[in-house]
Amino acid sequence: MDGEARDPGYVDLGFARVDTDRLSRTGDPEVVYAAGKTPDEVVAVVGTLRAAAPHRPALVTRADPATVAAVRSRWPGAQVEATTVVVGELPPARGLVAVVTAGTSDAPVAAEAATTARVFGADVVRVVDVGVAGLHRVLDARPVLQDADIAIVVAGMEGALPSVVGGLVGTPVVAVPTSVGYGASFGGLSALLGMLNSCAAGVVVCNIDNGFGAGVFAARIARRMHAGAVEPR
Amino acid sequence: MDGEARDPGYVDLGFARVDTDRLSRTGDPEVVYAAGKTPDEVVAVVGTLRAAAPHRPALVTRADPATVAAVRSRWPGAQVEATTVVVGELPPARGLVAVVTAGTSDAPVAAEAATTARVFGADVVRVVDVGVAGLHRVLDARPVLQDADIAIVVAGMEGALPSVVGGLVGTPVVAVPTSVGYGASFGGLSALLGMLNSCAAGVVVCNIDNGFGAGVFAARIARRMHAGAVEPR
Amino acid sequence: MDGEARDPGYVDLGFARVDTDRLSRTGDPEVVYAAGKTPDEVVAVVGTLRAAAPHRPALVTRADPATVAAVRSRWPGAQVEATTVVVGELPPARGLVAVVTAGTSDAPVAAEAATTARVFGADVVRVVDVGVAGLHRVLDARPVLQDADIAIVVAGMEGALPSVVGGLVGTPVVAVPTSVGYGASFGGLSALLGMLNSCAAGVVVCNIDNGFGAGVFAARIARRMHAGAVEPR
Amino acid sequence: MDGEARDPGYVDLGFARVDTDRLSRTGDPEVVYAAGKTPDEVVAVVGTLRAAAPHRPALVTRADPATVAAVRSRWPGAQVEATTVVVGELPPARGLVAVVTAGTSDAPVAAEAATTARVFGADVVRVVDVGVAGLHRVLDARPVLQDADIAIVVAGMEGALPSVVGGLVGTPVVAVPTSVGYGASFGGLSALLGMLNSCAAGVVVCNIDNGFGAGVFAARIARRMHAGAVEPR
Amino acid sequence: MDGEARDPGYVDLGFARVDTDRLSRTGDPEVVYAAGKTPDEVVAVVGTLRAAAPHRPALVTRADPATVAAVRSRWPGAQVEATTVVVGELPPARGLVAVVTAGTSDAPVAAEAATTARVFGADVVRVVDVGVAGLHRVLDARPVLQDADIAIVVAGMEGALPSVVGGLVGTPVVAVPTSVGYGASFGGLSALLGMLNSCAAGVVVCNIDNGFGAGVFAARIARRMHAGAVEPR
Amino acid sequence: MDGEARDPGYVDLGFARVDTDRLSRTGDPEVVYAAGKTPDEVVAVVGTLRAAAPHRPALVTRADPATVAAVRSRWPGAQVEATTVVVGELPPARGLVAVVTAGTSDAPVAAEAATTARVFGADVVRVVDVGVAGLHRVLDARPVLQDADIAIVVAGMEGALPSVVGGLVGTPVVAVPTSVGYGASFGGLSALLGMLNSCAAGVVVCNIDNGFGAGVFAARIARRMHAGAVEPR
Amino acid sequence: MDGEARDPGYVDLGFARVDTDRLSRTGDPEVVYAAGKTPDEVVAVVGTLRAAAPHRPALVTRADPATVAAVRSRWPGAQVEATTVVVGELPPARGLVAVVTAGTSDAPVAAEAATTARVFGADVVRVVDVGVAGLHRVLDARPVLQDADIAIVVAGMEGALPSVVGGLVGTPVVAVPTSVGYGASFGGLSALLGMLNSCAAGVVVCNIDNGFGAGVFAARIARRMHAGAVEPR
Amino acid sequence: MDGEARDPGYVDLGFARVDTDRLSRTGDPEVVYAAGKTPDEVVAVVGTLRAAAPHRPALVTRADPATVAAVRSRWPGAQVEATTVVVGELPPARGLVAVVTAGTSDAPVAAEAATTARVFGADVVRVVDVGVAGLHRVLDARPVLQDADIAIVVAGMEGALPSVVGGLVGTPVVAVPTSVGYGASFGGLSALLGMLNSCAAGVVVCNIDNGFGAGVFAARIARRMHAGAVEPR
Repeated sequence: MDGEARDPGYVDLGFARVDTDRLSRTGDPEVVYAAGKTPDEVVAVVGTLRAAAPHRPALVTRADPATVAAVRSRWPGAQVEATTVVVGELPPARGLVAVVTAGTSDAPVAAEAATTARVFGADVVRVVDVGVAGLHRVLDARPVLQDADIAIVVAGMEGALPSVVGGLVGTPVVAVPTSVGYGASFGGLSALLGMLNSCAAGVVVCNIDNGFGAGVFAARIARRMHAGAVEPR
Repeated sequence: MDGEARDPGYVDLGFARVDTDRLSRTGDPEVVYAAGKTPDEVVAVVGTLRAAAPHRPALVTRADPATVAAVRSRWPGAQVEATTVVVGELPPARGLVAVVTAGTSDAPVAAEAATTARVFGADVVRVVDVGVAGLHRVLDARPVLQDADIAIVVAGMEGALPSVVGGLVGTPVVAVPTSVGYGASFGGLSALLGMLNSCAAGVVVCNIDNGFGAGVFAARIARRMHAGAVEPR
Repeated sequence: MDGEARDPGYVDLGFARVDTDRLSRTGDPEVVYAAGKTPDEVVAVVGTLRAAAPHRPALVTRADPATVAAVRSRWPGAQVEATTVVVGELPPARGLVAVVTAGTSDAPVAAEAATTARVFGADVVRVVDVGVAGLHRVLDARPVLQDADIAIVVAGMEGALPSVVGGLVGTPVVAVPTSVGYGASFGGLSALLGMLNSCAAGVVVCNIDNGFGAGVFAARIARRMHAGAVEPR
Repeated sequence: MDGEARDPGYVDLGFARVDTDRLSRTGDPEVVYAAGKTPDEVVAVVGTLRAAAPHRPALVTRADPATVAAVRSRWPGAQVEATTVVVGELPPARGLVAVVTAGTSDAPVAAEAATTARVFGADVVRVVDVGVAGLHRVLDARPVLQDADIAIVVAGMEGALPSVVGGLVGTPVVAVPTSVGYGASFGGLSALLGMLNSCAAGVVVCNIDNGFGAGVFAARIARRMHAGAVEPR
Repeated sequence: MDGEARDPGYVDLGFARVDTDRLSRTGDPEVVYAAGKTPDEVVAVVGTLRAAAPHRPALVTRADPATVAAVRSRWPGAQVEATTVVVGELPPARGLVAVVTAGTSDAPVAAEAATTARVFGADVVRVVDVGVAGLHRVLDARPVLQDADIAIVVAGMEGALPSVVGGLVGTPVVAVPTSVGYGASFGGLSALLGMLNSCAAGVVVCNIDNGFGAGVFAARIARRMHAGAVEPR
Repeated sequence: MDGEARDPGYVDLGFARVDTDRLSRTGDPEVVYAAGKTPDEVVAVVGTLRAAAPHRPALVTRADPATVAAVRSRWPGAQVEATTVVVGELPPARGLVAVVTAGTSDAPVAAEAATTARVFGADVVRVVDVGVAGLHRVLDARPVLQDADIAIVVAGMEGALPSVVGGLVGTPVVAVPTSVGYGASFGGLSALLGMLNSCAAGVVVCNIDNGFGAGVFAARIARRMHAGAVEPR
Repeated sequence: MDGEARDPGYVDLGFARVDTDRLSRTGDPEVVYAAGKTPDEVVAVVGTLRAAAPHRPALVTRADPATVAAVRSRWPGAQVEATTVVVGELPPARGLVAVVTAGTSDAPVAAEAATTARVFGADVVRVVDVGVAGLHRVLDARPVLQDADIAIVVAGMEGALPSVVGGLVGTPVVAVPTSVGYGASFGGLSALLGMLNSCAAGVVVCNIDNGFGAGVFAARIARRMHAGAVEPR
Repeated sequence: MDGEARDPGYVDLGFARVDTDRLSRTGDPEVVYAAGKTPDEVVAVVGTLRAAAPHRPALVTRADPATVAAVRSRWPGAQVEATTVVVGELPPARGLVAVVTAGTSDAPVAAEAATTARVFGADVVRVVDVGVAGLHRVLDARPVLQDADIAIVVAGMEGALPSVVGGLVGTPVVAVPTSVGYGASFGGLSALLGMLNSCAAGVVVCNIDNGFGAGVFAARIARRMHAGAVEPR
């Protein structure tokens, strides 16, 4: 066997080894986390990914304005929402992810989660501004929550909404703490600890402000629930 | 006036200066925090308080079994609940304090809060085990909560119940985090931070497991709301 | 009953569900927390609240200069103090809240507390700069403190003032730690922990810099103490 | 309809309100968290649950030896593993959950996760002792991991295993940090933070030592992936 | 000069190098911190110190009962208070150290401070139980505090007493936080942070429960203030 | 007695109560902590202090450039060093304070300490850049350290220098941690904890970057050591 | 090649996969971390390791007395020091590791480090009780430190000794913080942070109390420095 | 002996004591940590070092652009990479240090480590972007890692790469956590704790972002492994 000819599963750009093998391993597209990379580096990585997998979109997260501009200049059709950029065609959607926010300040993180879930192949429905200080709002959203395959619940401050949703419906809940708050919220620590200690069974948690991770996880779950090949065991 | 003859407002026991002046300053009886004191020291302090104010009860908190036994041996009529001991007659009750718990594990702290509120002159109603993972329970308790002058809400884990109660009714809420939980609850820190960051306006917070402080505060409020002398300003 | 005709208790603005039902639930006006919202979003929410409850003021907190300008441009009569804006007539005042500061650096948080308490229906008296390093100042303020229905005590650094006030008078104390200090104050954590561990019974605590929450709580208490409907139980 | 006759969805035992309505809401059985409850209280709660839902098992977690003995004395057929007790028949299993451990010290938490997942209706396969210090072990387990619907990965110390598993296969990963370690592991904090910051997309996290929560979540997911009623959307 | 004959300034016991040179360097006797040493090791170290400096006392701190017994068995005249043992004659006293406590629970740490200060050559006066919740007690102690050369102020909980003392008199204040408290006192952290952030200028701080360090420092200061050799510069 | 005629011990400026009584209580001048005050407020407070005590200097700390300019514009002879401004004549110096730094980055905090000590009436000698990574530097400084009445030791990073100085000479040591460092220095926390845990007896500690507090304390001590009125007790 | 016949590099005991391949990968023997394992499990793992590599010793760390007894009962020649047990012949020693302690309380961790280094193939020299409060002791040890290939420096409290050693000699320093101390040492956190922030370049750090890890690392380094095969590059 | 004539081992610049003796003590050149120093101070220190040791390079770390410009203006041949500047000839290289990064965002810290190692006399090979989420990349790098004398592994987020490398090869590993990440990475704390708790024996850790310290340590080790004078003991 010839080492030179073997596909190592990545492309070496010198400053980065782009993992072109991930799709076959995980069924997901590669994603570029733009924080800490220059706009040129991001464009180079996206270009490599597009060349390696032209039929799948590339997702850029945490892009600052300069990076957004650089990507859009290279791929004018790129779709931008908040700090997220999508280059290429969206895949068909299977399964349904509900993205729920406690307050309007949680919207950017929810946008990252929703965009990611869609890019990773699931349909998305949004439920906004249903924080626990006015319970009638979340109670009204119960049918939507029950209809989803999985719910991403985004909240800052005390992070109580995932517990309430998790007690209200049987839909699995992925909680995302946000850095919304001040003082003893300590940059989202309060919401994070609250969600980790949720009294509602079956609530799992992502890093603070990590809408991306929640979107990936939820889309994988939702897609698998509606995969044709899945049979009762 | 003679300095020697002047009442200094305390009795010097050598190892302690018992504050016999507190009643006139605050309207409350003195309380003995038993942790870190020997049973004999507790008995001595209670005896001094009883002699100085025979018509008001003395309250001992955080009493271990040896201290409970020592106090009961000296005052057989003392009333014991959890780690709290009351020596002397209860005062007449004015105003109503609701003491609410999220789970059964929060009961000891709630008992401390309820006993304290009663000793400090307020009536008490209890609402137990209405955690947010089953919202119908707390929704059912709404009339009781609305009827109270002030509510003490005791919860561990993520400490979400005060936010829900504070959003549900206009009754002022005093939140008490408990050390119930494990792992990332960090001995009650999670509940404490959650309550401090409550999205429901008008929730105030006590120290972890501090049922006593909540009871004192709530009783003072409830009594003042029903004081005959209080007139619309 | 017709679901479409039913008032859901909120107005859906797309990016927010404004809770128009809160007044009937809690007796308080809705408040707009401006941090994390654009000036246009704040103006839209205030407009909805004004339309739903034209006879009550709307309170905006944590408004940056752009938001203050946008609100004032729309409602020229709005009253601004520090980062707080009030749109509409102040309600009649019942009960008296004392707002006390340890040092001049604590003034902005105290301003938020005082404005909030007034908007929520209580009268306010201020006691400034009476930190514990010069006890004669707080001792002189004793009559004012005793006369109030409830005291909000605002302090940074070691947060000792609430303990001193709580030991000095029987007035219930709501403590607000501020982020004033440096080094091991850790953004207000030192004052927060000090207040949570106050040796004076009956001190309750709000989040760091949360003058708003303290104002809401204190006004609710003060109003209830002077409500005509309140009768000795 | 008569309010008195209405089923409130819980049974009031005085010291607890047992949530008998949870099954219809979430599809899961009620569970008794035994820490902080007396053996008699646990037996009473289990008895209530058994009477309300005789065809489903009741699960007791964090049972100390006295509680285990009390439950077994009342229900001799109860199955015990580690601190977990199951009373009643196991449900049929749908879907497959892989429970993976980094080291032998993580076994008790993994046992809680596996028992819970099985009681909540999923099949379980275990992969033990495949920590990252000897990568060949986890590489060998790749087929088992790929075959599962979802993987629970249990690890203490630096908590690196979920990242490695999450990068190796496309199976969704639920990470459970354990309190295994010493010094700067700070009771599992190190593993918790490591998992929250996993560089592998789609890793979600539970509280430290919370095998139960992971088991509930994973079983819900696995069951839904193999529900007959689920159709491609 | 011969390296072998030279006095290295310590005696090598194999398991320890006892610093016999410290007296000439610092003017203080050596002290044995007994925690983590066996009773036999403590006795051996004390014996070495007694032999090297028979005219000065040796001080053992943090001695558990077994160590106390072992030391007393070897030196029957040893004086024991709390966990502190003194072997040998006390030195003459120069200067005056006031040791002040906030509450009776702070007594053991205050005892360590007072014993240490006396052994290190200063006279000691104690002021007990003058916590800030009853200001009249500390106000009454003002003459004693002013008369001292330096004050050690010992307090747990919020640690407010040093600020009050430091604002009341010009006597330099050494603050000692104690681990007295519960919940958010976090083992004395709350008092430590409070003291470090004291608003009273000129308050310095020791480690939590470190009565020994405060005693050493205060005695050095007090002795120097009354040294015959000290002349106005 | 006439309340109006009595000197309350402070001047009420509306936004501040300037403590004009402090000198008689503590022997020290009032100091203005400029952080969080406007330049105009600082000038107003300094003016009040100058009028109340024209023969003593006023010290402004933590002054930003605008405040420095405002003070200098009003009092052209003001002396500025780092963020510290002195208005008025320096007092005669009694006693000697050594101010020691571990590295050049610690210089600003040392400057604050030295200026403060001088303004508060002590003479100052500086020893710079004698960090423990090159022990010969601090060993060479031994005579200067021994000659001082008290030493202020300023260090960031691991904060080891106070332990070394405290073991080297008998001079009392006041340690000041600085926020110099990065990563796990956590803004000076590392140095603070190191100093609190010093293995050298008799090291006391100030808040992070609190050169002012160290200067006040050290000057009080040094002055008292050389007061003519002090007699051997 | 046959997958069944292939040596997977580990032996599957059911509850553990013993890594028998480690020697060829790393040149080190396998080690059994006994905490969290039963004595029987430890004996089983050691037996497997002995069978797989009879010519190399097996090292058990953190063994409690029951485990020590079980191992010794099975292998009477096992060598025990502190909580460490060695079964089998020691390897020949190459290179020299100095193990240095600040105080006698650090001895157990130093013993773990020294035993481990010896078992992993290096010679060991010990330097005890040379804490920085008496610098002459560590200055005297300079020749021994310079002669070693690498030094392990073990210290609790403020953890200053590695900085001093690292500044004194060019020998590479591995620092091990210990949990020796109290109060603000926070179980070794203070020493850990101090060492991580060492001002002496080239100091690396292990986990709190991790004498084992330091011993492994140091022995690998020392052996490599004296390997015959190593040539100047 | 004449104090003036004796070389004290440092040059006193007034604001700094430059340690010119370090080379003879440690075999390393002095380094200038530029953070907190003005450009002029850095140039002065470098000039002193160049004059004292013209045949060895001087290394400036953490230089901001102004400092870089000032140094380059004075020494046009200075080599700049990231925030590091080298003035003077590089020494001959002995031994080989591998510098490994988990992701592209870790590059600046790796650059600091690599430059430092080279300046301190070792050869360097770089392995980039081999994070554990795509294990095939690090598995491919195994030969390079095995060939090195010591490996510096730089990673942010969960910091898992050192454990994987440490389990893969016998090369000693120095781990450097970076502040790359967000939310619960807490500025690198997550990676730091992960590395300190590594399950792979023989991983030692540096401060967050401390590429410099890792480079110094690794170069010392690598040089010693290839020193002609080193003989098997």
